[in-house]
Parts: sequence; C-alpha cells; structure tokens
Amino acid sequence: MTERLQTLAREIARELAMGDSVRGESTRGESTRGAPPERHGSVAPSIPPHHSIADRIVATATRSGTPGGAPPGVTFVRENARIADFIDHTLLKAEATAREIDKLCDEAREHRFAAVCVNPVWVRRSAERLRGTPVQVATVLGFPLGASTPEVKRYEAANAVEHGATELDMVVALGHIKSGDWNHVADDIAAVVEGASGTLVKVIIESAALSPVEIIKACAIAKEMRAQYVKTSTGFHAAGGASAEAVALMRLVVGDSMGVKASGGVRDCEAALKMIVNGATRIGTSSGVSMAKCLGQGPLPLNDLLSLASQHSTGCATCTHGGGAGGIPGAY
Amino acid sequence: MTERLQTLAREIARELAMGDSVRGESTRGESTRGAPPERHGSVAPSIPPHHSIADRIVATATRSGTPGGAPPGVTFVRENARIADFIDHTLLKAEATAREIDKLCDEAREHRFAAVCVNPVWVRRSAERLRGTPVQVATVLGFPLGASTPEVKRYEAANAVEHGATELDMVVALGHIKSGDWNHVADDIAAVVEGASGTLVKVIIESAALSPVEIIKACAIAKEMRAQYVKTSTGFHAAGGASAEAVALMRLVVGDSMGVKASGGVRDCEAALKMIVNGATRIGTSSGVSMAKCLGQGPLPLNDLLSLASQHSTGCATCTHGGGAGGIPGAY
Repeated sequence: MTERLQTLAREIARELAMGDSVRGESTRGESTRGAPPERHGSVAPSIPPHHSIADRIVATATRSGTPGGAPPGVTFVRENARIADFIDHTLLKAEATAREIDKLCDEAREHRFAAVCVNPVWVRRSAERLRGTPVQVATVLGFPLGASTPEVKRYEAANAVEHGATELDMVVALGHIKSGDWNHVADDIAAVVEGASGTLVKVIIESAALSPVEIIKACAIAKEMRAQYVKTSTGFHAAGGASAEAVALMRLVVGDSMGVKASGGVRDCEAALKMIVNGATRIGTSSGVSMAKCLGQGPLPLNDLLSLASQHSTGCATCTHGGGAGGIPGAY
Repeated sequence: MTERLQTLAREIARELAMGDSVRGESTRGESTRGAPPERHGSVAPSIPPHHSIADRIVATATRSGTPGGAPPGVTFVRENARIADFIDHTLLKAEATAREIDKLCDEAREHRFAAVCVNPVWVRRSAERLRGTPVQVATVLGFPLGASTPEVKRYEAANAVEHGATELDMVVALGHIKSGDWNHVADDIAAVVEGASGTLVKVIIESAALSPVEIIKACAIAKEMRAQYVKTSTGFHAAGGASAEAVALMRLVVGDSMGVKASGGVRDCEAALKMIVNGATRIGTSSGVSMAKCLGQGPLPLNDLLSLASQHSTGCATCTHGGGAGGIPGAY
C-alpha cells in the first residue's frame, strides 16, 4: 500500500507543481504560470488553474444528485441546494452544558441542518432529542489532539454508535504524520472504520498544521481506508482552521467519491460559500443559524446560491456581525 | 453522597468568606479582614490568611516523608527536596514527533524528573525508553476536553496501563460540572479509577474555568472517588492555567492525603516555587530542564528551596528567558 500511496502522492505533487495558481486566490482567472515545469515521460500537465478546479469539482458534484462512486450517506451538493443542507451545527467547547446542547439540537431541527456535531458525552442526549428528524448526530473521536491509541479510537467509535451517533469525525494521529509513520496513520483510520461498523466516518487531518504533501498523503490514506469524508480542522489548533486552498487540494485528492468538510473559523456566509465553491460538501460551524437566516431557507439552483458569495463579502448585515446573530460562542 | 458534599462545600465556602485574603496574593501578611461575617452556630472561623494556609500545608506535607493518610505512589514534598522531584516533564501538543518524545524521555532520565507526561499514543515508546529508571510515565485521558464518555475513559485508562503508563491524568467532564450533574462527575472519575486498577489517577478539574464552589465540589468528589491527585489544568483551555489561589484552595479541600498538581502556564522558577508554597506536590511544565539548571540538582532543605522564590522573581537569567532554555515549545 505504501508504494501505491507514494506513487499517487508523487503524481499529484507533480501535477500541483504545474499550476502555481492552485496555492493562491489572487491568481484566480489570471494566467500567470511561470516557466514550463519539467515533464516526466508522457504525463501531461492536467491541472487547471484554481477557479477551473473549483468549477470542475462543482460540475462533477452537481452532475447528478449523488455521483456514481459516492458511498451511501455522503451528501453531495445538489442542483437545488439550501445552505442548511451543508451545515454541521457545531458545539464542541469543553464546558458546553446540557441546556446549550438542547438548544443546539432544537436549532438544527428548526433549520433542518445536515447534522449537529457534539462531544461524545452528549451523543445520547442529542440522539434522543433529534429522534424522528432528518438531522444526523455527528460526534468527534480522539478529539482534538488525535493522540489516543487506535484501540481507544476503535472503542470510542463503537461506543458512540451505541449511543446513537450516525456520523463520526475522528482526528488523525498528527504526530505520526509529522514523524512520517504512515502505517500508523493507516492503522488509526482503519481502526475507526472498523469500530464504526458502517457508520459514516470523517477523517480530520488538521490541514493548517500540514504541508501540501502531508495533506495529499493523509487524504489518499483516508480514501484507501474507506472513510467517507476528509475534514480540514478541529477548530482547536493554534495553526488555524479551514482554508479554501486546503479544501481545493483535498477535493482534488479524493475525487468525487468522498465528502469534504470545511471546519474551523468558517463564521460567515462568504467564507462558507467560498468553501463550497472550492469543493466542500459540508461546513462545520457554530454560525449556521445566522447563515441560514442570511442566505434563506428556500432551495436555489446551486449556482445561484454560490453566486451570492460576492454579495456577502461586504456590507451583509448578518454576516458582518459574524456568528453572533444566533451563533454559539466557542472554538468554532 | 451529594448531601455530604453539599455540607462540605457549605462549610468550606463559609470559611473562605472569613478570609478575603485567601483570594489575592496582595494581602499576604496583612490583616485586612472586613466586618466580622455571620457565624453559624458554634462553627468558629478557622481559616487563616493566605500565607498561613500555605505554611500550614507545607508544615503538614513536610512533617514526615509521606503523611500517614497518603496512598502509595503519591509523592509529597520532603525535608530535603530537589526541584526535579516535583516536575512532570510534559509534551502534549498534537504534532509532537517520535523524536521529540525520545528527547523528552532522555531529559527526564538525565534530570531525574518525577515523570514524563505524554499523549496515550506515545506511552509504549516512553515506557520502553525509560525502563529501569525511576521516572514515571504519566499520560492523559479524555484530554483536553474531558467530554468523552465514562466507558471510553475507563477503557482508555486500562489501555494506557497495558501500554506501560504508571500515572493517569484524566480530564473531568467539565460540561457536567457546569450543568450541575455531579453524579455524572462522580461516575466519570470512578470509571477511570476502576480502569486504572490501582495505577495512580490525577483528576484535572480545569480550575481556571470553574468557580471556587465548583473547584471545591470537584475536588471533594475526586477525593471521595479515591483518586490520588487533583490537578489544576490541561494547559489547553482559553480560560488559562494554574493559579496559586486555585492550588491553595484545592489543597485545602483534599487535605494531606492527596497530591495536588499545578499545570498550565507554569514556565519559570518563581511560578513553580509559588505553586509549591501554596500546596502543589507536582508541577506539570515543559520548562523543567531550565528550572533544574536554574535551581540546581542538589537536594536542599525544603524551606531553603522555597526561599529561593524571591531571588527568581526578577533578574534570574534562566527564568527571564522563560521556558526557552531547554523547554519544549507547546501548550504548556
């Protein structure tokens, strides 16, 4: 497996080297490539500039309700989309109370968010409160450091499913990525997928703390180990949260058979829509209520929804108040 | 049990109300009490001002090598003490590498620190590297949010012991403290004590995020559930780390039959010595190497060691460089 991954990583890294614009928003729509990079045999540079990647991903994702290769439970963007369909309504701070968790669940039900995302200790309560609604109950494993053992993560996954979790957001073993121990990373993800027994698994790679090559390898392994999602961030790391560039790179690696979740610091409509344009199919945020109020509840053709981004970059009354208008203070 | 705890909390809270100086360093040695507070029956105000509490605790702790009531494995300060005896040499950041863990262990062996404190995924490696030395291998459970279920914490405790951990620093369910669900808090600690099968358990209460009454109750429950230590902080909470006031209060609640560990933001000699004066028997820090270099390796009568605090408050070359002179950058 390691050799296959190395090959995959090399191929993607080579492709990335062809399109500098992939690394920065500022080159969007421009054609600012440098000198033609080295070619390897007959592998043609196939990577388009940044906006084209996003266009291609959106085109792929919207081609049908769910692309052929997508496993059950991965919600891709649809032709008619509501911002709420993308939202994992999130409250993960350590001191969150039972009352705050109940409020989170009630808001998720009211706005028909995709999921709530809560700490394991609140899964049973959330599952009971959301019974009979379409809202999923996501929880986190090995969170936020990712530094518990694979055995513990496996047990924690099974325990969460038993308590009623329908989605599991695990944190990968970041120290082992940094140590180059990719076998441990693979075993770690495999343990959770095993413990999940078919429940949807999202792999949090903490992208802001990784190099592009580390992002590529981590995503490739998550795909290899049959997780259903890759996710950018815990929202607790000093290096920061989601970036549009990381989302685009992650989408590029996993193709259209997995979900991509952008989380950590996504606090207003503009940021959320930018993540979706770049390939995110889920947004982890505590500002979902204000986003839903601002962008509306009615389904819109996806391109119409995404085109709202420019209107929300400045002067949007709800957005400029950040997550405050209904958002829950916390790490997200 | 709850009624006993309520009574205990009331008694201590009443006592605390008698000595305002307990809450602030600035009143040290002064006699600035306000109007005589209400008395309840014949319960005389027995709480001395802050410095006297510290004196009493140190006197108690140094009365003998290990006070009569102390369970095995709880290291109390001794008449002849080295600063290294107090240090849990700590590296808990998510991205710590195998190489950094090895370095931590080697430093702990060289300076004969009380323990290393590492994430669970590094316990086996640390235990192998420290085999045959007196250095303990401490790890963390439910860290740093404390929001995994009691079942998972029990499993994680047993797993860590199996990997070679000799001390277990668990994070209490902070959200349940804030929700007033003290039965859950008790069950949570009991689960870890059970999973630990006699291995030393430290209960992290995240004191900076708690009110004084919450600190009192949490410590009383930790004692009731037969944990061996209470510990102030994870070092990852936005509210901050250890304070001398929290340490003094925690020591007051647990008496002399438990250890108190001060952790989170204890980065120089003055801070460390201040924690010890206030009742700490262990210091969690990544600056242990610079402290050991600065305060020396030779054992000193405890009072001589503690009297060094004033010399290290300003102008101490090692200290004024913070944890940099050998400390490992991280959350601690």
